[in-house]
Amino acid sequence: MNRLRIAIDMDETICDSLSRHLDWYNRDFGRNITKQDTVGNKIYNIVPDEHMNAVKRYPTHPDFFRDLPLIDGSLEAIRTLNEIHDIFIVTAAMEYPNSFEAKYQWLKTHLYFLSDLNFVFCGFKGIIEADYLIDDTPKHLDNFSGKGLLFHAEHNINATGYQRVRNWSEVLDILKAAT
Amino acid sequence: MNRLRIAIDMDETICDSLSRHLDWYNRDFGRNITKQDTVGNKIYNIVPDEHMNAVKRYPTHPDFFRDLPLIDGSLEAIRTLNEIHDIFIVTAAMEYPNSFEAKYQWLKTHLYFLSDLNFVFCGFKGIIEADYLIDDTPKHLDNFSGKGLLFHAEHNINATGYQRVRNWSEVLDILKAAT
Repeated sequence: MNRLRIAIDMDETICDSLSRHLDWYNRDFGRNITKQDTVGNKIYNIVPDEHMNAVKRYPTHPDFFRDLPLIDGSLEAIRTLNEIHDIFIVTAAMEYPNSFEAKYQWLKTHLYFLSDLNFVFCGFKGIIEADYLIDDTPKHLDNFSGKGLLFHAEHNINATGYQRVRNWSEVLDILKAAT
Repeated sequence: MNRLRIAIDMDETICDSLSRHLDWYNRDFGRNITKQDTVGNKIYNIVPDEHMNAVKRYPTHPDFFRDLPLIDGSLEAIRTLNEIHDIFIVTAAMEYPNSFEAKYQWLKTHLYFLSDLNFVFCGFKGIIEADYLIDDTPKHLDNFSGKGLLFHAEHNINATGYQRVRNWSEVLDILKAAT
């Protein structure tokens, strides 16, 4: 049995923040953008410049993280991994400092089986020492010294050179083989 | 020239949170505790049990980090180190989740020359990959895989088996020799 330290990103890996972004954007600006429209891009790159500041402020709203939809199977998979591995949630929270508290409360509520000593709010993820990092953002995997798994998302669809995982079932298979 | 990644704790290493704790405790409970009274102990261990909750809430007050006194020479030393090394501020903020925002603002104001991508709010510091960790809490150095420097404080006076640094001038000397 190989006990691993596994770092896991939050947004678009555990919870589906993009859906909330799209819902709120469509509501506020009378649009009908779907996930399909974000293929190969971040939402910030596909809305008009004059809307960008409003969209970037969404995660700082106290309601943003409330009842945030989940990525399919994420919580169950993390609970399974936690039985034999050391799990850390590593989120680039410094980009949205006003959302620290809401992110923390979301993690405490949904990942209550982890110690909050295992939550990391950072910026540059190269500072993380772990065996694995599961993350939807290629640049974080580029900076990471361990083994990276690129969690599939519409925005990273064109990224190559990474071990891509399409869902949490694939993550479990890979980590089971490494254990 | 050896460019190092140096992780630096915040409370009691950069800023003197203990002084504020003592000031507020003495104000609220009519006492006259000094730093000398905390030798070998944390403040939480020397106040009566019935006062502990109030004292533990101090860092969650919005004014706690306002005009917090500094550890002598800390900012100047960090600015010097930042000229040739990669500096990360690594604070065990998960113990006081209500103080995330205030801590972040303090860091942005006083360490404005660092990117906020180099701020890390965590719990367990064993997750940090760096060459050095400068910290006043022995348990954080125990968990750290790099080289630890124990920043001298009244509460850690009895800790042995660590490379102790008594002030920021000593830190600069040691890191200059390692560069």
